[in-house]
Amino acid sequence: MHLRSSCNLKFEISEPTPFILMLRPRSGSQQWVEKEEFKITPSIPVFEFTDGYGNLCQRLIAPIGMFSIDTSSEVITSDYIDQGFDEPFVEIQNLPDAVLSYLLPSRYCESDFFNEMSMEITQGQYLGYNQVAAITDWLWDNISYIPGSNNQPISAIQVNTRKFGVCTDLAHLGIAMCRSLSIPARIVVGYLHELKPMDMHAWFEAYIGNRWYTFDATQVGNRGGYVVLGFGRDAADVAIFNQFGTPVYPIEQRVTVELIESSF
Amino acid sequence: MHLRSSCNLKFEISEPTPFILMLRPRSGSQQWVEKEEFKITPSIPVFEFTDGYGNLCQRLIAPIGMFSIDTSSEVITSDYIDQGFDEPFVEIQNLPDAVLSYLLPSRYCESDFFNEMSMEITQGQYLGYNQVAAITDWLWDNISYIPGSNNQPISAIQVNTRKFGVCTDLAHLGIAMCRSLSIPARIVVGYLHELKPMDMHAWFEAYIGNRWYTFDATQVGNRGGYVVLGFGRDAADVAIFNQFGTPVYPIEQRVTVELIESSF
Amino acid sequence: MHLRSSCNLKFEISEPTPFILMLRPRSGSQQWVEKEEFKITPSIPVFEFTDGYGNLCQRLIAPIGMFSIDTSSEVITSDYIDQGFDEPFVEIQNLPDAVLSYLLPSRYCESDFFNEMSMEITQGQYLGYNQVAAITDWLWDNISYIPGSNNQPISAIQVNTRKFGVCTDLAHLGIAMCRSLSIPARIVVGYLHELKPMDMHAWFEAYIGNRWYTFDATQVGNRGGYVVLGFGRDAADVAIFNQFGTPVYPIEQRVTVELIESSF
Amino acid sequence: MHLRSSCNLKFEISEPTPFILMLRPRSGSQQWVEKEEFKITPSIPVFEFTDGYGNLCQRLIAPIGMFSIDTSSEVITSDYIDQGFDEPFVEIQNLPDAVLSYLLPSRYCESDFFNEMSMEITQGQYLGYNQVAAITDWLWDNISYIPGSNNQPISAIQVNTRKFGVCTDLAHLGIAMCRSLSIPARIVVGYLHELKPMDMHAWFEAYIGNRWYTFDATQVGNRGGYVVLGFGRDAADVAIFNQFGTPVYPIEQRVTVELIESSF
Repeated sequence: MHLRSSCNLKFEISEPTPFILMLRPRSGSQQWVEKEEFKITPSIPVFEFTDGYGNLCQRLIAPIGMFSIDTSSEVITSDYIDQGFDEPFVEIQNLPDAVLSYLLPSRYCESDFFNEMSMEITQGQYLGYNQVAAITDWLWDNISYIPGSNNQPISAIQVNTRKFGVCTDLAHLGIAMCRSLSIPARIVVGYLHELKPMDMHAWFEAYIGNRWYTFDATQVGNRGGYVVLGFGRDAADVAIFNQFGTPVYPIEQRVTVELIESSF
Repeated sequence: MHLRSSCNLKFEISEPTPFILMLRPRSGSQQWVEKEEFKITPSIPVFEFTDGYGNLCQRLIAPIGMFSIDTSSEVITSDYIDQGFDEPFVEIQNLPDAVLSYLLPSRYCESDFFNEMSMEITQGQYLGYNQVAAITDWLWDNISYIPGSNNQPISAIQVNTRKFGVCTDLAHLGIAMCRSLSIPARIVVGYLHELKPMDMHAWFEAYIGNRWYTFDATQVGNRGGYVVLGFGRDAADVAIFNQFGTPVYPIEQRVTVELIESSF
Repeated sequence: MHLRSSCNLKFEISEPTPFILMLRPRSGSQQWVEKEEFKITPSIPVFEFTDGYGNLCQRLIAPIGMFSIDTSSEVITSDYIDQGFDEPFVEIQNLPDAVLSYLLPSRYCESDFFNEMSMEITQGQYLGYNQVAAITDWLWDNISYIPGSNNQPISAIQVNTRKFGVCTDLAHLGIAMCRSLSIPARIVVGYLHELKPMDMHAWFEAYIGNRWYTFDATQVGNRGGYVVLGFGRDAADVAIFNQFGTPVYPIEQRVTVELIESSF
Repeated sequence: MHLRSSCNLKFEISEPTPFILMLRPRSGSQQWVEKEEFKITPSIPVFEFTDGYGNLCQRLIAPIGMFSIDTSSEVITSDYIDQGFDEPFVEIQNLPDAVLSYLLPSRYCESDFFNEMSMEITQGQYLGYNQVAAITDWLWDNISYIPGSNNQPISAIQVNTRKFGVCTDLAHLGIAMCRSLSIPARIVVGYLHELKPMDMHAWFEAYIGNRWYTFDATQVGNRGGYVVLGFGRDAADVAIFNQFGTPVYPIEQRVTVELIESSF
């Protein structure tokens, strides 16, 4: 699938404000970035770096006045997400070193609290992919996906109690349950074709049978059209922008995803 | 100060059990490891790797039966911890890339909740070292340090409510407050000479004026004698051992620190 | 300066051929990539990774038949290269860890042979920037820059004997001399506005006074217009394409750089 | 095999002299460091860091006067080196990213010159381990190993012409030939039990069938007893000490390896 995604952010800045952005998609095993634009207005110095998860991040100090960030990309991504039923659980000793940190609890994924619950939900499942599929089904059945219900991340324990949430909330609960079963899991932030209502999206990946698989408890079936912006342990790591000092909110935030042509 | 520290752990293993250890001190800007021992009994294959924070970690599968880990080290470390009164706050744009992740909230340090409280506690302080010193003083005055009161990490919000805790708990609250003021902060796990009662210890560091400074709200004054085993965002990252599968607890755990000779 | 640069490569492939490319410019302290295109025809899976020097590289297997790579970018870069006369030499003990490997001899920069010669050329110069400026002047005066004179990299010792060479050759000799004086130096490959004849270009950077400075012994003055594709120890690390198996040569290779608008 | 290895270096320093050391063995897939000592006399600040190849390196400034470095270690290592006859060549597209740089030519391994010769030497061999074994046999038959014949590294081309050399020279030629066949190869520096005459040693590794295999053209058979200090592209990367400024030579250099007990 060939997608054009864009994100436009506009701020009114009243004092010089440091930002860290995560808005440049990166080609990887999952997608090929064929075209990309990233404009900062007014034109100011921006420093790009790679964070500890491999994401391309940008640092800048927004000057006083109107400040906008306009990014778009044309990405080749899969029509369907890969499924791996019966792919086996990877024993800890066989996990790559770089994957191990995705086993640990994190800010919004208190995996240390979910072992019993996850064991119950995945009872009888073959260890590995099928467990995560069972967790995703359980999320779909038990946690209502209500876009816009929440504009601050809440943690897996809170989501589990409240029983509804935004995409990030469902991802956090799914991740916490995977990790409680010693399955590495991480959050992904990006775009999804035909997401309704259109906005930035978040889902999760679990490491099974020697690769990462995509799971999204907010969508039915295995349709693809995902464009990845960044990976991390949870929402704390993958904000599309982190801003420091007096809080500033976008006065405009527009996200689009359109189909260019189905291919690849 | 020249210290000999040791940690001996003994387990009775009933099924092959994967472990990840963080027990090998590493020479760095803070300490020089002059001598070191690390024995695993029985002798089994162990794989060492460096985690995302730069710590030397070890992976192994403990076999059925008695299993013990015996480590000791002779380390040259400072008699006093450096203090940096009036050292200035580093603006976000001037922080090294590698330090940025220590600004984010993490599992046990929900820094996103502490800005107001931290502003109040540090009111009137010159931005930087003095703020963290004020936070440390506040911890000393307001959170009782009760070794052994807790054997599971609890989070900064919980510590702040409960008003007492172990060394890790005080560190978590200190870290959460620093980060809420945009000061990078991290947990440190290791040994401390003359800690009473003797045990593994945890404290925290804050990045000010272009270096990391040590803070420990469980101790008076600036006496040194710290031996670092590992760094991380919070206790989730720096367990001296992480064990997977059916929980196993040490049937013996012994920590010692003795003075060899004062020097350096 | 706002530049649009492009590189088009076309191959006729007779057996499946692995390639590693280094053709995606990366935003950094020196440039901001505002727009970028990278097309592979036919569309095949490509895997992107970051090499040990921080460059974005792409791996693919070119299939049998016509195979083309079309990249272009719009980059904001400086009108003039920064000069730093009198910026001081950085003592080894104060160099960042990541810079140390740029002190060592490498495939085409046998710095271990150049100390005496470099001492002579830089005699009387204040240690640091002025030494490298003297080396660059010496290169300009003593080694003829003859584009196209060479299509295989030769080493600094060979360049010094032959007395002429392409851009890469002059860079190698400059790098070898810097390193022989304990000044870290690295090669840079990329585009240069108004290079005559237009082609890919190579120059070098030296680490002085806590940053990298640009030097180019093939150009007069300090005009800018540089677009960086990659960094490395020498030409062995920064080939825009490395191809494995039976050698294949581009049947078409076109490089362009045009001015969009002067700004920034 | 349980070995105690040691290296003692003594210098007479006449001006403050920066050193970079590579003398701390690191536990890895090949060895377990059970005990280790590293003394610097007089006691001065030393900073340890990890280089781009994963080696633990130390930086210091040797003060005027007598200066000594005393290291020893007790390491569990294998009695025999693993052999992997018929293990297959790994196609470029299947190599891990981190291994790719070991395909490139480097200072002392001009692999770009050896393809024809390597093809001839390995003619008829099954691609992979058997090719490297044939290269090692060829080295044994054609390049005389003469310890002490050389105290500056020379390059693969030079070794091939001169027809004799020290351990490093044979390793360089072997590496250059492997890389010319698109087999990743790296140098290893360390200790070898019963090396005659006893000294620091160097050998090489080639990446075949998804792991690194050890090759040593200076020894017969597959006896083990290797203790690794560091890895790199060639001798330029793995000097046990690099010293900057006016050259200083050890007035004493003593290397020992003794057997403690055969086990593991």
